[in-house]
Amino acid sequence: MSGETKAVVLVSGGLDSATVLAMAKADGRQCHALSFDYGQRHLAELQAAERIAKELGAVEHRTVRLDLRAIGGSALTDDDIPVPEHGTEGIPVTYVPARNTVFLSIALGWAEVLDADEIHVGVNAVDFSGYPDCRPAFIDAFQALADTATKRAVEGRPIRICAPLLHMSKAEIIRQGASLGVDYSATVSCYAADNQGRACGRCDSCRLRRAGFEAAGVADPTHYARD
Amino acid sequence: MSGETKAVVLVSGGLDSATVLAMAKADGRQCHALSFDYGQRHLAELQAAERIAKELGAVEHRTVRLDLRAIGGSALTDDDIPVPEHGTEGIPVTYVPARNTVFLSIALGWAEVLDADEIHVGVNAVDFSGYPDCRPAFIDAFQALADTATKRAVEGRPIRICAPLLHMSKAEIIRQGASLGVDYSATVSCYAADNQGRACGRCDSCRLRRAGFEAAGVADPTHYARD
Repeated sequence: MSGETKAVVLVSGGLDSATVLAMAKADGRQCHALSFDYGQRHLAELQAAERIAKELGAVEHRTVRLDLRAIGGSALTDDDIPVPEHGTEGIPVTYVPARNTVFLSIALGWAEVLDADEIHVGVNAVDFSGYPDCRPAFIDAFQALADTATKRAVEGRPIRICAPLLHMSKAEIIRQGASLGVDYSATVSCYAADNQGRACGRCDSCRLRRAGFEAAGVADPTHYARD
Repeated sequence: MSGETKAVVLVSGGLDSATVLAMAKADGRQCHALSFDYGQRHLAELQAAERIAKELGAVEHRTVRLDLRAIGGSALTDDDIPVPEHGTEGIPVTYVPARNTVFLSIALGWAEVLDADEIHVGVNAVDFSGYPDCRPAFIDAFQALADTATKRAVEGRPIRICAPLLHMSKAEIIRQGASLGVDYSATVSCYAADNQGRACGRCDSCRLRRAGFEAAGVADPTHYARD
């Protein structure tokens, strides 16, 4: 393993982060996969993350428990806010306040513990659903923070934030992953997946994903609850 | 309560954050206190945080569970790394990688849920023990991140990061808090406090605190284990 660049890769169990992991591995990174049990509605995506990390050759996978339900405020973490079935204008209720900021911060801590050079994250500004923490300006600002926030930064070796999907369409992401052999049937993108990880087919995330497979010309292997 | 500026105040159970809470309250803020159960060695400081939030008039107090032990790397969260009794050169082993970044990120999320205008944090660059995330450059970088990371920021109402102790000495902090009636006997600063919250009197944090009371000319009310 010596000589490989170490990277922390955020793996949610979804399509985008699985692609990022496959890309990082293809680029010769030693990948340390990181997931969060943050009070999301279902744990199927965490089981998917575990499977994906293993299948795509991460050297290890850790899941950090973090109780974002204590602060609430999102349809994904608050049972009183329903997941909508139709897209809306502006920032949707599925936005989890500061989620990517929190996840990248914990990744930064782990990267420092591992002495890793990079953090890879699957944020995407094309299909970003209006989330403020999926925009290029957010990634730039987080990089600037990483350049000052850690022991490594003080030592002149700041950790790089890599967001390779930032400007890719969903179809481009799927084509890229398919070319690297990602098994997308193992991934869960749905905001309202059931206990077996089967997708609802109706939420924003399902609709973006289905349209992505269509546009990519790749057969959609998603397990839908209504199949 | 209407008309008051809402603020999330990070309250650790220690001396600095208790002073910040008293200052925010004196400035007319409606204070929402936030603590973290992050796998620290002892829970006495969380009990202290609960007591302090109540005594100093926070409208509510929440504790977010976050398992930083999953990433390890610090004497404060890893049982295999002992807490040192003597100061060392450079960044000490009590540094928890990216801790303030993580705490501020979660505070940012809660501030957004509450529609709060400010986050108050007791970081201090004078007695900062060499921690990279207690420096003015870190606070500036986090503010720049907050200016882009949230729904409020997108709407042109970014959340302000307030670090009123940043340039104060420990003695100045203690004098300020004493003038506002803070009961420092309720606070726990020690890295190795026992179950009753009694201080070891020997770690870096105890030595800074004791010297602060001496320099401030204020009687030290700390409960030491050896008393």
